[in-house]
Amino acid sequence: MTSGITRAAAEELDAADALAGFRERFVVDDPELIYLDGNSLGRLPAATPDRLREVIEDGWGAGLVRSWQGWIDWGARLGDRLAAHVLGARPGEVVLSDSTSVNLYKLAGAALDAAPGRGTVLIDAEDFPTNRYVLQGLAGQRGLRLRRLASDPDGGLDLDLLRSALDGDVALVVLSLVSYRSGALLDMAEVNELARAAGARVLWDLSHAAGAVPVDLTATGAELAVGCTYKYLNGGPGSPAFLYVRRELQAGLRQPVWGWFGQREQFRMGPDYDPVPGIERFLVSTPPLLSLAAVDPALTLVEEAGVARIRAKGLQLGRLADELADAWLRPLGFRRASPREPQRRGCHVSMYHPDAWRICQTLAADAKVVCDYRVPDRLRIGPSPLYTRFTEVWDALDRIRAVTADRTYTSRSADLARVT
Amino acid sequence: MTSGITRAAAEELDAADALAGFRERFVVDDPELIYLDGNSLGRLPAATPDRLREVIEDGWGAGLVRSWQGWIDWGARLGDRLAAHVLGARPGEVVLSDSTSVNLYKLAGAALDAAPGRGTVLIDAEDFPTNRYVLQGLAGQRGLRLRRLASDPDGGLDLDLLRSALDGDVALVVLSLVSYRSGALLDMAEVNELARAAGARVLWDLSHAAGAVPVDLTATGAELAVGCTYKYLNGGPGSPAFLYVRRELQAGLRQPVWGWFGQREQFRMGPDYDPVPGIERFLVSTPPLLSLAAVDPALTLVEEAGVARIRAKGLQLGRLADELADAWLRPLGFRRASPREPQRRGCHVSMYHPDAWRICQTLAADAKVVCDYRVPDRLRIGPSPLYTRFTEVWDALDRIRAVTADRTYTSRSADLARVT
Repeated sequence: MTSGITRAAAEELDAADALAGFRERFVVDDPELIYLDGNSLGRLPAATPDRLREVIEDGWGAGLVRSWQGWIDWGARLGDRLAAHVLGARPGEVVLSDSTSVNLYKLAGAALDAAPGRGTVLIDAEDFPTNRYVLQGLAGQRGLRLRRLASDPDGGLDLDLLRSALDGDVALVVLSLVSYRSGALLDMAEVNELARAAGARVLWDLSHAAGAVPVDLTATGAELAVGCTYKYLNGGPGSPAFLYVRRELQAGLRQPVWGWFGQREQFRMGPDYDPVPGIERFLVSTPPLLSLAAVDPALTLVEEAGVARIRAKGLQLGRLADELADAWLRPLGFRRASPREPQRRGCHVSMYHPDAWRICQTLAADAKVVCDYRVPDRLRIGPSPLYTRFTEVWDALDRIRAVTADRTYTSRSADLARVT
Repeated sequence: MTSGITRAAAEELDAADALAGFRERFVVDDPELIYLDGNSLGRLPAATPDRLREVIEDGWGAGLVRSWQGWIDWGARLGDRLAAHVLGARPGEVVLSDSTSVNLYKLAGAALDAAPGRGTVLIDAEDFPTNRYVLQGLAGQRGLRLRRLASDPDGGLDLDLLRSALDGDVALVVLSLVSYRSGALLDMAEVNELARAAGARVLWDLSHAAGAVPVDLTATGAELAVGCTYKYLNGGPGSPAFLYVRRELQAGLRQPVWGWFGQREQFRMGPDYDPVPGIERFLVSTPPLLSLAAVDPALTLVEEAGVARIRAKGLQLGRLADELADAWLRPLGFRRASPREPQRRGCHVSMYHPDAWRICQTLAADAKVVCDYRVPDRLRIGPSPLYTRFTEVWDALDRIRAVTADRTYTSRSADLARVT
């Protein structure tokens, strides 16, 4: 069983890869291990351990509480860099804080409170669980109707479905730009325009998009967005999330968690909450500084590489994976669970197989391939362009082929472990 | 100008100090610097940098996404340790997550939703800003009355005032066990009993108490609490906060931020939010792992020392500071801004001086004493018992005396910088 693409062809792609040099800017502890789960947790940048030691020893250890002078606006400074290099936003529109879920809660709450005459929230029935749960909670608390759009689990949301759902009662639409499972990529400009025409707001989750695909929040007329920094941005496990609020909207929105980091003249500690007019009004409290600090060196790499080049390589990696999957895996019972064209996906691709869970376990345990699994039967492959070689995708698909063809995975437990 | 306590007497206290050995378990970068702001940011434990390097390099770098298997319940495991050694709570009642402010929002929201017939929230008008603002926001959103108890800015809340305010309409009382400014320590058992008798719940903020004074949530009948881990627990800048919900209440409370870390069978990713019955229902999302990891070695030190011994030394440090302040600083225009008896305070003490801000700046810049300042005219001194020597308190008070007596501070700007 062979594909038209030989390993030598993958080697040629590596040789021509403009981003090849970035791999050595990451810690690759075990060169044999093929890591295709950068869409869950990006690799460790090589500069991060020393940078963290500096923040810990010089900042915390020696500087002690005095270091907060330099730390207190770090989330805003990182936000401005994200805005400029990753999100297509303007200075003062992005800030790092809390988790994606908490930011989603804050911005959704703010948007709903600013649309008192409207009673419907639209979500994607296939969206990431937290997004659905957070909105379920907010809608329930405010007595709003939560309408779940039945999007295609493989192809993504049909915009005709969205168009017909956008009646005059919709206050807010919450969507992921890139689906966490299928990788389906929406057209941000078109969705924003549809919602705008209906008088509704869109709150974007950019977790699987930021650092993987070009995003232009300004040009597409986006108003609200959140996203995480530990996937394609390589900020480290649980690193603080970002939130974006279009400049013109900021002063008119008030988020529900009134913390002192949103307060005007924070250290005057006045009696009543009086939020700053700018993006900091969406902050709550002291950020987890060590986790925040790790975003800094990671972001430098994305800035240097540039999202356009990352996307170009991501498309090539996707095409290679598609072609090999078609040739090698389809005959073994795999089915595509993502849009066919790489241009219509983020940087990961998803495949169905009835034994996906056991195959995923076997790949990690015996074949040195880490990819991931989503219930009930999806194998998800996310080759992050900054550090993934074309030959790794070739080898990984070859190993998936071997594990599946040999049915070595059948000895594995079919029980889903708690963490998958 | 002399006090009855000589420096030799302080040296004797150091020689007899049962906790003296703990100082070398912390990084003391500059032995000349006297650090009296452990109530804002505790010192860096000596074990923390290597522990963090291990988590970063072995966990993140080598283990990659697979490390979440061991990380995912770290907040609960640290919570159980805090419960056992610091908070007097039972297993499964404490978990680390988010910030103190966000946890306060979650638990206050849960408590208010569970008391639909009651329309009043009581707060302390002198409480830490975030606590007041968060409750102001929650009360406003729910149409509840926010009643601010006029507590004594130096002596703390008068329980007779609380008693008379606790009518049948009060749903929730939010109080700090130790006041962030005056250090005033409340009687937790008595407050809990007063509230219980009135059918109200108490939500405690233990930020300035945890690791400084004995807390027994179980024995005092406490139901809800939050607090931070970066003060006397030395978890590092912005380290994740804790939350406590008494076991018997957990299943009956539902917090407002419905995230996937609270979901039953989290990785099944089902359509509707269905929170676990236990303490994890108060979680939201992926914790900031590097910041969380730093709590681990820090907590070990508090466990080894034991809160009882920490408190005993804290009282001695407080008595020394009182006596020296009476002898040296009162004649120079300082006034006590804290309860007189160390037993009625946490581990910090506060003093008024009209030039407190400039004195505080001068101490840091010219006299190697870091303490802190609160608007408009308070100098706050927090000698954290695990690493502060009696001679440091003696020397610090001596330097405050010198700076104030010489009026060297008058050349400083009287303008309040953003961070103080």
